[in-house]
Amino acid sequence: MVQSKPIVKIGGAFDALSAKLVETSGFDAIWAGSFAISATHALPDASILTMTDFLRSAENMVDACNIPVIADCDTGFGGPPNVSHAVKKYEKAGIAGISIEDKIFPKQNSLLKNSRHELLPEKDFVAKIIAARESKKEDDFMIIARTEALIAEKGMDEALKRANAYENAGADAILIHSKENTPEEIFEFSKKWNSEIPLVVVPTSYPSVKLEELITHKIKMVIYANQSLRAAHNVMSKVLKDIIQKESIDKINIELSSMEEIFKLQEMYKINDQEKIIESNLKKMGYIN
Amino acid sequence: MVQSKPIVKIGGAFDALSAKLVETSGFDAIWAGSFAISATHALPDASILTMTDFLRSAENMVDACNIPVIADCDTGFGGPPNVSHAVKKYEKAGIAGISIEDKIFPKQNSLLKNSRHELLPEKDFVAKIIAARESKKEDDFMIIARTEALIAEKGMDEALKRANAYENAGADAILIHSKENTPEEIFEFSKKWNSEIPLVVVPTSYPSVKLEELITHKIKMVIYANQSLRAAHNVMSKVLKDIIQKESIDKINIELSSMEEIFKLQEMYKINDQEKIIESNLKKMGYIN
Amino acid sequence: MVQSKPIVKIGGAFDALSAKLVETSGFDAIWAGSFAISATHALPDASILTMTDFLRSAENMVDACNIPVIADCDTGFGGPPNVSHAVKKYEKAGIAGISIEDKIFPKQNSLLKNSRHELLPEKDFVAKIIAARESKKEDDFMIIARTEALIAEKGMDEALKRANAYENAGADAILIHSKENTPEEIFEFSKKWNSEIPLVVVPTSYPSVKLEELITHKIKMVIYANQSLRAAHNVMSKVLKDIIQKESIDKINIELSSMEEIFKLQEMYKINDQEKIIESNLKKMGYIN
Amino acid sequence: MVQSKPIVKIGGAFDALSAKLVETSGFDAIWAGSFAISATHALPDASILTMTDFLRSAENMVDACNIPVIADCDTGFGGPPNVSHAVKKYEKAGIAGISIEDKIFPKQNSLLKNSRHELLPEKDFVAKIIAARESKKEDDFMIIARTEALIAEKGMDEALKRANAYENAGADAILIHSKENTPEEIFEFSKKWNSEIPLVVVPTSYPSVKLEELITHKIKMVIYANQSLRAAHNVMSKVLKDIIQKESIDKINIELSSMEEIFKLQEMYKINDQEKIIESNLKKMGYIN
Repeated sequence: MVQSKPIVKIGGAFDALSAKLVETSGFDAIWAGSFAISATHALPDASILTMTDFLRSAENMVDACNIPVIADCDTGFGGPPNVSHAVKKYEKAGIAGISIEDKIFPKQNSLLKNSRHELLPEKDFVAKIIAARESKKEDDFMIIARTEALIAEKGMDEALKRANAYENAGADAILIHSKENTPEEIFEFSKKWNSEIPLVVVPTSYPSVKLEELITHKIKMVIYANQSLRAAHNVMSKVLKDIIQKESIDKINIELSSMEEIFKLQEMYKINDQEKIIESNLKKMGYIN
Repeated sequence: MVQSKPIVKIGGAFDALSAKLVETSGFDAIWAGSFAISATHALPDASILTMTDFLRSAENMVDACNIPVIADCDTGFGGPPNVSHAVKKYEKAGIAGISIEDKIFPKQNSLLKNSRHELLPEKDFVAKIIAARESKKEDDFMIIARTEALIAEKGMDEALKRANAYENAGADAILIHSKENTPEEIFEFSKKWNSEIPLVVVPTSYPSVKLEELITHKIKMVIYANQSLRAAHNVMSKVLKDIIQKESIDKINIELSSMEEIFKLQEMYKINDQEKIIESNLKKMGYIN
Repeated sequence: MVQSKPIVKIGGAFDALSAKLVETSGFDAIWAGSFAISATHALPDASILTMTDFLRSAENMVDACNIPVIADCDTGFGGPPNVSHAVKKYEKAGIAGISIEDKIFPKQNSLLKNSRHELLPEKDFVAKIIAARESKKEDDFMIIARTEALIAEKGMDEALKRANAYENAGADAILIHSKENTPEEIFEFSKKWNSEIPLVVVPTSYPSVKLEELITHKIKMVIYANQSLRAAHNVMSKVLKDIIQKESIDKINIELSSMEEIFKLQEMYKINDQEKIIESNLKKMGYIN
Repeated sequence: MVQSKPIVKIGGAFDALSAKLVETSGFDAIWAGSFAISATHALPDASILTMTDFLRSAENMVDACNIPVIADCDTGFGGPPNVSHAVKKYEKAGIAGISIEDKIFPKQNSLLKNSRHELLPEKDFVAKIIAARESKKEDDFMIIARTEALIAEKGMDEALKRANAYENAGADAILIHSKENTPEEIFEFSKKWNSEIPLVVVPTSYPSVKLEELITHKIKMVIYANQSLRAAHNVMSKVLKDIIQKESIDKINIELSSMEEIFKLQEMYKINDQEKIIESNLKKMGYIN
């Protein structure tokens, strides 16, 4: 897919419903992001939820959708043995790839103000990538190495050095993250990056970057990680306050999907279809007329 | 709470984040609805998710919120032993009450077109309520008996007869459900209902009913079950399509909550507060300066 | 496997450790039995644990073992839609086949004294088998239809009639269960059974039956469902009482496996092997000497 | 309990059944050990299972038993925020106390040969204890600080220094662990230990120590962590091999508990009792004669 498209568009989801909307909206893949999943559990994005919880959310998405699901695995849930275990479990669950990042476990969200962003020594993160590579069974299970070198203000050279090291260790793609509000440092990185494996970006903090610019700068995958969650948070805050204030719910100013639209997404009528197949079989077998 | 307020307003949620928004918007309690929870798993509302799944969702809400959580337990997950087991588990998890309904397991959503709505014989549902009553430890754990007699078109007398029987069996409240698009049959029911225990309604299909009318008709609890989900579904469909179509995400027309708003909900900064408490203790103990 | 062996021996397990011992002891396959799994949860074998719980236990076995795992799915967790959902989940988890039985949900254990064993109408169970058959993706995912007609004292003709119906509906094997303490009725059944699909038995109540006799009577699969659990229960009762009574644990009369034996089963040293692979890679890459 | 008994005897369990046997055998409390729980998942005791998995196992024990359950939480599942989250979840689940140890996450089992046993800096472990203390709601939720200083060969002074620091930070008891095959270093520790809070030991490697000796040396709690598991592993290996070799299961030489004994433990007949209560209520209400 990465070969055949100018850029792969990945939409953020936090449960099977939002994943299905990512799919039906025309995205190429789904991002099971740890920030959004943590938020829907009302828990900090700081390695508080466990691999069991994150895997369950991502597997629910896989079971509901046909496009690939890429799972945000933060720092890999511990050391190399935890990464190895996670790769086996995620691959078995049908996830198409995972992303692991070079922060120290337990981590904090990259965009949190005044938070500490310590990097793991390069050697230790390389060890995690080797563990991931050695544990995957299918060649096309994608290991995305995310470097937080720019977030941690370690400089462009460090970012490039680490990205190279991670590629050598077996990463199938590099996610270069930035908290700047322009894409300049991302573009500088991509100019200096001489490698075949895809670059991935998450333009949360530089939302004005154009898709064409990303393509021009050799970015192969773009993750719109949290807009679905933030839109849902915003509209639910409004509709709930509106219900409290209005005398009846037909007076609320927020547009609601119909029950039928939700029934369709959750395949409520498919049960009736299955019932018809069973009935037609029971007729053939003489149980019913 | 039911005593002290003219009417108790209950907002529908499907995960801890939506539950927290119900709380902060001013509702009195949270409805952990099986339709909405099934929908976020992209699975039919037809007893497909198990008690384990529903309980996990409801417990996540309890852990995140301070107002009571009432859990929609459909038909009680099987027979009386399953109801008994569910009551023990839900009560232990801190859920304030459950609702069980008098349909046949596995059930179908009450508002699905052309679906069958068979009622369980009254005796068998009474047995479930007795099982629930015998299994609860705290008096104020609320057992809401929901009758689908009107949905199943069994008539007003049947609905009243069943409601009375359920109260006698130990129900703490009666949820009278209707698929009519006016509240007339609900009001007729409430007029003929002579009992002390609270009446509960879910005005999904008759959204024009006014809160004052409900209060006038002796309704003590109203559940706005799925507006949060339907608003979220609607806005996410839009924002995701918008991202696909616009050249950059700052051009999308949908309002997004800021990252900071989400961070606040998930208490990201509380970790920093805890860190400060630990640091101040470590200073006192002489470990750091 | 069923074709190539005179009889397939299946050993009962309740967690990944017991499953691994079934494998290393020379069995052909593992039985993830609902009685044993319920017992290890200290819960009645009466459809109290949910599909989520049973699936988790069975999947843990699959992840630990190389021989096939067959999962006891009781009555299929509800109606045809639940069977359909279960087949999808179990097949995806790597389970080799499931068994469903023609009792009414929720069920009671077949060997419980004075318990009721009502059969589901044949038509309704046939509907479940059709649902299972229509939902499986791989031809070799085995659907075992278990008839409780003899347990429910419905007679040999009913048992044969049902077994035929279940085969016609798509069952890949028939489990004929008996609570007699001799194998006579099982043998009578097998003599009158004219079909190609394998017969399966569980000789818990007639333990004196010889393997040769089963083979002679055209039984193709035998499940030793609960001896592992009952031996473990027995020895743990003893060793724990012994610890309480003896002045030191080296005085207990029960033989214990060494810590090393357990370490080996759980592949503790494999982590060290993985560490060596990582170290050797880090050396090649120049990170360590 | 610690005050009123000469020594508190704690038996190791890995699921609800083994926990219930610990209870019925006369122990004072149950140890939900991470080694045994990992082993039953056929996974290394190396922080591979997540908090979610360990908590589920421990909660199953709580739900089945009346005596206190103490949960082995290894290194606390990460840093102070993870410890804090774990304390909230374990306390809510009804666990009576947890043990956390001063190794580096992810850890390896203390008795594994040739394994590395690096200690966390004292300050960092003190931070975890403070996090635990600040997060517990009930005074009698017990935080056991386990020092691995002797296992890591850091010497007696370091062990005592750390134990003191942990007590000052808020630990309610100290678990002093040893891999020696005599209790000498444990006794030396207890002689030099001048404090009110209880000492806890796990005599796996020095099984000849007598209960009286432990009492004499001021040990207040003794954990028999893994004998139940090792006895079960041993006997299951035998019975399964025996089934493979014998011509019928009545010829196996291993003693089995009866089905009835297991039925009793899992309270199969309680469902019948509940049914009788329901029936008697239904009679009173006129539904049945």
